[in-house]
Amino acid sequence: MNILVAHGGGPTAVINASLQGVIEAARDSGQPGKIYAARFGAEGILKGDLLDLTDVSAERVSGLSMTPASAIGSCRRKLTEADFPIILDVLKRFHIDAFFYNGGNDSMDTCSRVNELAIREGLDLRVIGIPKTMDNDLEVTDHCPGYGSAARYAALSSAELALDASALPIHVVVLELMGRNAGWVTAASAMAQRLTRCEQLIYLPEIRVDMDRMLADIQDRYAKGHGLLVTLSEGICGLDGKPLADTGLVDGFGHVVPGGTAQFVSNQIIRELGIKSHAEKPGLLGRASIPYASEVDRREAYEAGRYAVEAAFAGQSGSMVAIRAVREPEYSGSMFLTPLEKVANAEKKFPREWILDGNQIADEFFAYAEPLIGGGLPEYVDFR
Amino acid sequence: MNILVAHGGGPTAVINASLQGVIEAARDSGQPGKIYAARFGAEGILKGDLLDLTDVSAERVSGLSMTPASAIGSCRRKLTEADFPIILDVLKRFHIDAFFYNGGNDSMDTCSRVNELAIREGLDLRVIGIPKTMDNDLEVTDHCPGYGSAARYAALSSAELALDASALPIHVVVLELMGRNAGWVTAASAMAQRLTRCEQLIYLPEIRVDMDRMLADIQDRYAKGHGLLVTLSEGICGLDGKPLADTGLVDGFGHVVPGGTAQFVSNQIIRELGIKSHAEKPGLLGRASIPYASEVDRREAYEAGRYAVEAAFAGQSGSMVAIRAVREPEYSGSMFLTPLEKVANAEKKFPREWILDGNQIADEFFAYAEPLIGGGLPEYVDFR
Repeated sequence: MNILVAHGGGPTAVINASLQGVIEAARDSGQPGKIYAARFGAEGILKGDLLDLTDVSAERVSGLSMTPASAIGSCRRKLTEADFPIILDVLKRFHIDAFFYNGGNDSMDTCSRVNELAIREGLDLRVIGIPKTMDNDLEVTDHCPGYGSAARYAALSSAELALDASALPIHVVVLELMGRNAGWVTAASAMAQRLTRCEQLIYLPEIRVDMDRMLADIQDRYAKGHGLLVTLSEGICGLDGKPLADTGLVDGFGHVVPGGTAQFVSNQIIRELGIKSHAEKPGLLGRASIPYASEVDRREAYEAGRYAVEAAFAGQSGSMVAIRAVREPEYSGSMFLTPLEKVANAEKKFPREWILDGNQIADEFFAYAEPLIGGGLPEYVDFR
Repeated sequence: MNILVAHGGGPTAVINASLQGVIEAARDSGQPGKIYAARFGAEGILKGDLLDLTDVSAERVSGLSMTPASAIGSCRRKLTEADFPIILDVLKRFHIDAFFYNGGNDSMDTCSRVNELAIREGLDLRVIGIPKTMDNDLEVTDHCPGYGSAARYAALSSAELALDASALPIHVVVLELMGRNAGWVTAASAMAQRLTRCEQLIYLPEIRVDMDRMLADIQDRYAKGHGLLVTLSEGICGLDGKPLADTGLVDGFGHVVPGGTAQFVSNQIIRELGIKSHAEKPGLLGRASIPYASEVDRREAYEAGRYAVEAAFAGQSGSMVAIRAVREPEYSGSMFLTPLEKVANAEKKFPREWILDGNQIADEFFAYAEPLIGGGLPEYVDFR
């Protein structure tokens, strides 16, 4: 069995843990064969630029789960119709028996189309998708590998900023978190209220923001004198449906360049309310940080990689690995397969009913997310 | 012996570790007496608003070193002549025998003046300063508690972003780090080059930036195709000596509000070079993060607190605790006392000769800073 694994889209803190799972499961299978990885995702496949990881030392492989970003490289190339026959040719040329694509809903669409083409051409190829996205927007699966770590980053960073803001209670801190369309990550920042006594307002992209009301709420909460943390998604929009902050720039991919939503809100706080304010935007650190990564997430990402290989070697194809979660009496996650078509290009939304008063998060979310964020949460000391 | 401890200025990741050292040393001394802490720094002293920590459980005290910000609160109040007699009255009223002020050069000036006034009034008061600043700009001491953790944050975050930028090599990442006047923290970001193979450019506030040259250098480095990380201090200025980014806003303290230097440079990269670029600014997280804190720094901060109490109980006064470092054959730090006047309002500059070509950092800096950043540095896996 020769296998090929590729990464698609932006990395997460644990995508390399899935890679480790793939490599170790292939080795543990005892089946002879090559282990290839596409260098820089679909770009590498199209160019036939594959890394041969067959003989990489076990020690290096074991270091993968503590390495952020992608150890094999990824890309954001949007594939066209003309690309798929080329991909199939490369898979044939390297005698690939099983293909694993580790990505989000775009990548699952690619996976699905490679699978269909292979079937049409009568190629004996097993295709399995491995889920990955910090955005947590994949359907069917309870949650996505990558999300727990991004959520833990949001939760702990917010708690730390909340303590900083309340220790020197002369300012508001506005924290911008990743998520252009979905509020899953920013919602996790609300954990700051459970870990500290700070006042907090939370804004998700699912709700359009009335700037006047936002400023009035900030003024009210700040007046309580315990410091105030405002957390918001980079993608929040005003009542007109347009991003609050806009640089007026469009990047080479035609995407509008966001202009620092936190900075914009922070400047409004200074200008309109006369309150000192800090804007913070850790940005990509939210998906790249290893010290803040969730152990649960890392373990599940690893298991998802292993499960994909075991399924393919058992003859499965055309599926994505998904996670089934049991939360009571204690959390456990297990893997299962779901047809690729069910997840390709679908998007799981953050439930509207979990957003309270436009700026608070319901307990149902914490019941969902806390096990994914993982244990060992800090117990801060506060004498104030 | 009744003691009073207070925090001044912005917190660090380890200022609470010094507080733990103060409390534990006072208890270990076996001397009876009250342990007071000023609630919100000088504000609390002036109002006679002191927290009585004498009977706080040992378990809560031991949790201090893993708590960011200030567990007793701090403030940025600039003291006037009229404040000092009030401070002395409060110290008398609570029968304080030893006063510990934990802060930067401003705080050491306060310490020095309280000490002088006490001597003039014939009060038997011991006054000891405990150093604290992520900026690392205190004189005499080899380095300041708080710096090692901020440096570790800068180093590891930069390495993680470097991996992210090179995993998806379609963009530049611009990371803004704290430091309006001194480049100590941003210099530590250059560790990314030692931990990854990413291209990196580093801009410290000590060197005025020629924007045209900066953009030309970015274009050159980016063209090598391995991704590019640009790290810069929030306070960098252009050739005209003005901050690169300026919101045009002034806060309630009369300080100019910085406008997001990384965002400004990033927009220039998109606009002038047509390269996709991300701007990140973790801001206060750089001084509040516990998962990135340096063990060496935490231990020394704790020791500085202990040493201050032991010195005061041995009859010392009018001094600040400083750190003497030996780096060969292996690192060790030890505490000593230095007169307050030597550090009050003085500023240790980042050596110009450690900045190479305006955007690289000399090996001498790493020899200085690596032991402070601490061990257990990651060994990333990169198959690309």
